Amino acid sequence: MDGSHWLSMRPVAEKLAQNGHKVVVLTAESSLSMNGSDLYTALTYSISYSKEDLVSRLEMFGSDHFTPSYFPGVTITMYNNMQEVFRIYGDVFTSTCENLLKNETLIKDLETSNFDAMLSDPIFPCGEIIAEHLSIPSIFFLRRGAPFGMEQEASKSPSPPSYVPRIFTTYTDHMNLSQRVKNVLLSLFDFVFCHMLYSPYTRMASEFLKRDVTAVDLFSRASIWLLRYDFVFEFARPTMPNMVFIGGINCVNRKPLAQVIIVCINSSGEHGFVVFSLGSMVSEIPMDKAMDIAEAFRSIPQTVIWRYTGKVPSNLGSNTHLVKWLPQNDLLAHPKARAFITHAGSHGIYEGICNAVPMVMLPLFGDQMDNAKRIESRGAGVTLNVLDMTPEDLINALDSVINKPSYKENIQRLSALHLDRPIHPLDLAVHWVEFVMRHKGAPHLRPAAHDLNWIQYHSLDVFAFLLAVLVTTFFISFKCCTYTCRRCCGRKSRPKSKSKKE
Amino acid sequence: MDGSHWLSMRPVAEKLAQNGHKVVVLTAESSLSMNGSDLYTALTYSISYSKEDLVSRLEMFGSDHFTPSYFPGVTITMYNNMQEVFRIYGDVFTSTCENLLKNETLIKDLETSNFDAMLSDPIFPCGEIIAEHLSIPSIFFLRRGAPFGMEQEASKSPSPPSYVPRIFTTYTDHMNLSQRVKNVLLSLFDFVFCHMLYSPYTRMASEFLKRDVTAVDLFSRASIWLLRYDFVFEFARPTMPNMVFIGGINCVNRKPLAQVIIVCINSSGEHGFVVFSLGSMVSEIPMDKAMDIAEAFRSIPQTVIWRYTGKVPSNLGSNTHLVKWLPQNDLLAHPKARAFITHAGSHGIYEGICNAVPMVMLPLFGDQMDNAKRIESRGAGVTLNVLDMTPEDLINALDSVINKPSYKENIQRLSALHLDRPIHPLDLAVHWVEFVMRHKGAPHLRPAAHDLNWIQYHSLDVFAFLLAVLVTTFFISFKCCTYTCRRCCGRKSRPKSKSKKE
Repeated sequence: MDGSHWLSMRPVAEKLAQNGHKVVVLTAESSLSMNGSDLYTALTYSISYSKEDLVSRLEMFGSDHFTPSYFPGVTITMYNNMQEVFRIYGDVFTSTCENLLKNETLIKDLETSNFDAMLSDPIFPCGEIIAEHLSIPSIFFLRRGAPFGMEQEASKSPSPPSYVPRIFTTYTDHMNLSQRVKNVLLSLFDFVFCHMLYSPYTRMASEFLKRDVTAVDLFSRASIWLLRYDFVFEFARPTMPNMVFIGGINCVNRKPLAQVIIVCINSSGEHGFVVFSLGSMVSEIPMDKAMDIAEAFRSIPQTVIWRYTGKVPSNLGSNTHLVKWLPQNDLLAHPKARAFITHAGSHGIYEGICNAVPMVMLPLFGDQMDNAKRIESRGAGVTLNVLDMTPEDLINALDSVINKPSYKENIQRLSALHLDRPIHPLDLAVHWVEFVMRHKGAPHLRPAAHDLNWIQYHSLDVFAFLLAVLVTTFFISFKCCTYTCRRCCGRKSRPKSKSKKE
Repeated sequence: MDGSHWLSMRPVAEKLAQNGHKVVVLTAESSLSMNGSDLYTALTYSISYSKEDLVSRLEMFGSDHFTPSYFPGVTITMYNNMQEVFRIYGDVFTSTCENLLKNETLIKDLETSNFDAMLSDPIFPCGEIIAEHLSIPSIFFLRRGAPFGMEQEASKSPSPPSYVPRIFTTYTDHMNLSQRVKNVLLSLFDFVFCHMLYSPYTRMASEFLKRDVTAVDLFSRASIWLLRYDFVFEFARPTMPNMVFIGGINCVNRKPLAQVIIVCINSSGEHGFVVFSLGSMVSEIPMDKAMDIAEAFRSIPQTVIWRYTGKVPSNLGSNTHLVKWLPQNDLLAHPKARAFITHAGSHGIYEGICNAVPMVMLPLFGDQMDNAKRIESRGAGVTLNVLDMTPEDLINALDSVINKPSYKENIQRLSALHLDRPIHPLDLAVHWVEFVMRHKGAPHLRPAAHDLNWIQYHSLDVFAFLLAVLVTTFFISFKCCTYTCRRCCGRKSRPKSKSKKE
């Protein structure tokens, strides 16, 4: 996986290389962020898209979320949007995957390389097809258990819809009846939706592996699930022994800040500064929105460092500094950081938590609404609808998170809980990758549930059997009773009829 | 908890003290193994039993399991036996608990001590009553999630009976239909049985806390469950975020062997030696059984080191050394250890796994049958029924585990998986106790399922609602149809009747 997905995976690849393993990163020739490294070998394959194509699609993707027809936070819109994402942008990944699978030289090269394991982000499960072909164990590296309803089926992790909110609902773990009704219906729908989304991959897998392969087959072959969250952020729920929680893995690499950034920070005085970024995928926004935001920033006493590559808004205040890229984690670690305005991507959220900076969240797509809801429900941030919000809304939200002590206290509490761990998430992730390499998988962590069908798993055959026993017992008892009654009555009545005959 | 339960908990208490915490160990005046230490303060309270009483009960307990009426491995016998254990020996714990709760001076002392947390083995949940009274968070330290069906209810960890075998069944995670039927029935029965067993504690808790308290209330207050197993030994199954797996915590403290033991080992030659112990609770066995065992040992080429305090069997071979106590873990760690004959208690099993010594298992009571089955199903040991077995059975079993390579290979595989961990279980346990102390519990790891009733948890109200909607929709549609039909028919028929009238 390219983009932000790769950003937190790269340190794992690098650490594995530093530990003496040969790491091969399989990457398309045109890529957004998968650049080479001295630490690992990049094995590239040609695709039909140029880097410019990818960047322009990304820009289109960003601006799409600022159209008036888009309603973030409305479940059905989110599903529609996700389907659109898969339709418009997914073909990049599908065709990339097809190019990879049809690259015979590369596949032969992989076949002879004797790999120990495959580390992949399975949101687009192309790596899984290769891993299955090479018969090597897989380690999944991802934000959720698996997209949508695939999670429960592929990991066999129970996910009671009564308190485990489904993606795009923005519910917490405390739901009222109507929310639970929607959550139950969505958990049924999720699974179907997921199968639809992954149909191109099951088709490619079946063709490539020359046998019928389902999406569940691809997803359930994970030896270890490295999940980029913990229960400071996510709501407590059932897990499985092969799930390893590495939330906050991206809060590493503290580097000294650049001189230009230090100048900005020093200019902020006692009020400190605010960091604003909408993530690696959205660096431009429509001018009217940019002006609204700039207007809000003019009115606050804090300095603002804003990652923005678009046209400079004419009303930009002197306290607002536009940068093309910002060292987000290092900036948030600065003691003068007062608030973090974020799109609520999981990386950003964890950088906010690690550094205990309260957040104003402007979620746009994917799991961002749900992420924002989790932080808001913990009282550590405020969510705004970026399309509807006025400058006053933003000013008020910033005022709240900066000046109401509860926000700072709550994010400090979350941060303390999150950082209090016996081992750093990066070391934990590397340990489990190496574990899978050393032991050729982790079959002892695979639940026997994988060997049961749906009826067996839910003990429906057992209940059917018990019901049959009950019914049969009842039926026999009933027959015995009626027979006995008839015999008794018969004895009484027969002599009568006999005497009659006589 | 006294006895072997305390043995693996003590290192945690000691390590906490070494980390600078004040550790107070609450212990009855007469105790089997809870002796004082320089590292912690022992706070004692008087009870109506002397140490001699406890020892004689323990001896009676051991010999009870060698009566012909006892059938280890038969589920119903195991339940009966467990009920007997609670009836005969449980009164020691119940009266001990009563003595503790009625010791006003001690309770006042505890109230003013401002403890941060309570670490307890909740098999007899007396500590929980105190923790609830003092309003301090609890950490559970135990072999299973909770005895019997309490586990699922108290931790909210799903436990599908289709592949999670219930205690005393000796089933693996792969069950046929008849086994699954029994497993489902037992999971219903377990919960009721557990409530019966714990009724003395709920009575004491309700009296002491002056409000109604259930067993689930006591068990579900755990902030962290420190569980003395891992999934090398236990079958993979759903877990919860507040469960921490510390199997093998007892495989510590490697000490040099005593001279007398070294002499035994050195006499063993190339064949090595066998370690035999039935655990801390059974050190004597009936003479006929002891003679059978001695007879078997005479015929094997290995030296045997046997923990046995009874009368010396007259047929004892020169290769068999009786000892009153043996440094089990240190002995098993010796490269000449060839086999471990054990009662399959969880401590012994883990010492066998840590040191990669294949096992002959003679389970007697409690979870020992299930433990033995787990090791046997992994091909790392052989189970014998200690009551039925002949000397030949024991010879054959020892011959298998020592001379068939698969047993050694399997236990080495299990050992390698078990020891390949990012942090030692003792450090992990100490980390989580300190975590609870630092953060006054771990509320973020507590699932919201605790706030739902049974109907809500299983979404039964949601399904009832959906069914009601369906039925109503169907009913209204039906009524509309019939009404429309009647109107249509009515229109056709009315003119007719009109014309008739006309």
